[in-house]
Amino acid sequence: MPITVLGLDADDTLWHNETFYRLTRERFNALLADFADAETLEAEIAATEHRNLGLYGYGAKGFTLCMLETALTVSKGQVPGYVINEILAAGREMMNHPVEPFPGVHQALEELSTQYKLVLITKGDLFHQESKLAASGLGDFFSGVEIVSEKKPETYLRIFSRHGTGPEHAAMAGNSVRSDILPALEVGSYAALIPYHLVWAHEDAPLPTDHPRFVELPSLADLPQWLAEVS
Amino acid sequence: MPITVLGLDADDTLWHNETFYRLTRERFNALLADFADAETLEAEIAATEHRNLGLYGYGAKGFTLCMLETALTVSKGQVPGYVINEILAAGREMMNHPVEPFPGVHQALEELSTQYKLVLITKGDLFHQESKLAASGLGDFFSGVEIVSEKKPETYLRIFSRHGTGPEHAAMAGNSVRSDILPALEVGSYAALIPYHLVWAHEDAPLPTDHPRFVELPSLADLPQWLAEVS
Repeated sequence: MPITVLGLDADDTLWHNETFYRLTRERFNALLADFADAETLEAEIAATEHRNLGLYGYGAKGFTLCMLETALTVSKGQVPGYVINEILAAGREMMNHPVEPFPGVHQALEELSTQYKLVLITKGDLFHQESKLAASGLGDFFSGVEIVSEKKPETYLRIFSRHGTGPEHAAMAGNSVRSDILPALEVGSYAALIPYHLVWAHEDAPLPTDHPRFVELPSLADLPQWLAEVS
Repeated sequence: MPITVLGLDADDTLWHNETFYRLTRERFNALLADFADAETLEAEIAATEHRNLGLYGYGAKGFTLCMLETALTVSKGQVPGYVINEILAAGREMMNHPVEPFPGVHQALEELSTQYKLVLITKGDLFHQESKLAASGLGDFFSGVEIVSEKKPETYLRIFSRHGTGPEHAAMAGNSVRSDILPALEVGSYAALIPYHLVWAHEDAPLPTDHPRFVELPSLADLPQWLAEVS
C-alpha cells in the first residue's frame, strides 16, 4: 500500500521539550495587549498564517512576517515601532535555531520530505508549536501543521483524509504508544514508535508488538528505510 | 584546475531585464522620504543586509525583513503602520515571483549551487538588483551579491579572491563579451558566454573563439556540464 503522508509528533520526537525558549505566546500577547486579547491574537495569527501559507511556508522568516502582519492588523496600523523591533529580534532569534533537533532528524526529514507529505501533528497552542518548528530549522520540510486537543482515532482519520488519500496511505511517528501509535493503527495507518525515554514509552500503554503495521525504531533516522520497506 | 566559485551576470542572463517590476528603490525611497534621503537609505539597507546575511540569505522573505528593519532604523521607530503594510505587501509580491527566470535556469542553479559558490555580479543599484534576485526565486542559491560600477579585470580579481581562492579557480557566465567574458579571461578565470540576442552579443566585442578557457553555450542549462568538463 503506497504511503503518501507522514504524520510526526513534535515535542520529544523531533526535539526535546525545551523548558527554556524565549519566544512564547505570552511574550507576543504582552507586546500587543493594548490592542487585542490573547484569544483574538491566536485567531488572527492563525488566519494570517493560513492566508500566507503558500508564500511563507513554516520557516522562521515566514513566521516572523506573520507576527508582523498580525501586529499591524490587530492594532489597525498603530503598533509602536519598538514592538515591530521586538518581533524582528524574536525572528532573528528563531533563525539562530535555539530549538535543536535530535541527532539525525534534520537529515531524515530532508529525505522523507522528497517522498512524503509531512504533517506535524501535536497538542499545545499553535503559536508555541509553530514558533518551535520555525526555530528548529525543520519548518521548510513540512506541508502542514495540525494542532489538536486530543489524539484519537478520528483525529488521524480526519487529518490523513484532508492531507492525503486516507489513513491507509499514511504513517504516524511519535514517542507515545497511547497518543501516536494505537489510534493511528486503529484507523488503518502505519505507526512507528520512536521512544524518548524507553521505559516511559512502554509504561504509556502496552506495545502492539505483533501488529503488522507497527514498528519500534531506535531513532527517527531509521524511519526512511522502514517506510520504504512497508510502502 | 578545480573551480570553486561561479560568477553570474543578472539581467538578460538569468532573466529578461524586466521593464515592468513594481518594487523599485524609488518606491521604497518615497515611502520613507520623511525620514531619510535616498543615499542614506541605500547605505542603511546595505548595512542591514550585510548584518543579517547569515540568517536571512538572498530570498524574498529575508529581503522583506531587511526593508522593515531599515524602515524602523531610519525612522527611529516612528515609521507609520501603513508603510510597514506597504513593505509587507511588496514582499508578498516578490514571493509571487514576478521576475521569471529563463527556461532551465532554476534547475541549473540548483544543481550548480551544490558544487560551487554562486556570486551574482551585476551593475545597477543594490536595492533593485537584490529585489529582483529575491523575486526570481533564485536568491537561496546565491552566497554572495556584488553590485559593481564597472566590470573590469580588477573587478573579477577582487571578487573571485574575496569569495573564493582566486580567479584561476573561478568561472564567469554572462551575455556580454565585453563585460562578462574578456575581463574574466584576462585575470585567468574561465568564461561562458550565454548570448541573449545572438547578434547583439557578437557585436559587443570580437569573440575570443580560440581561447582555451572560453565557451559559448546556447543556454545556462548547458553550464553544469561544461564546468564539470573543464574543472
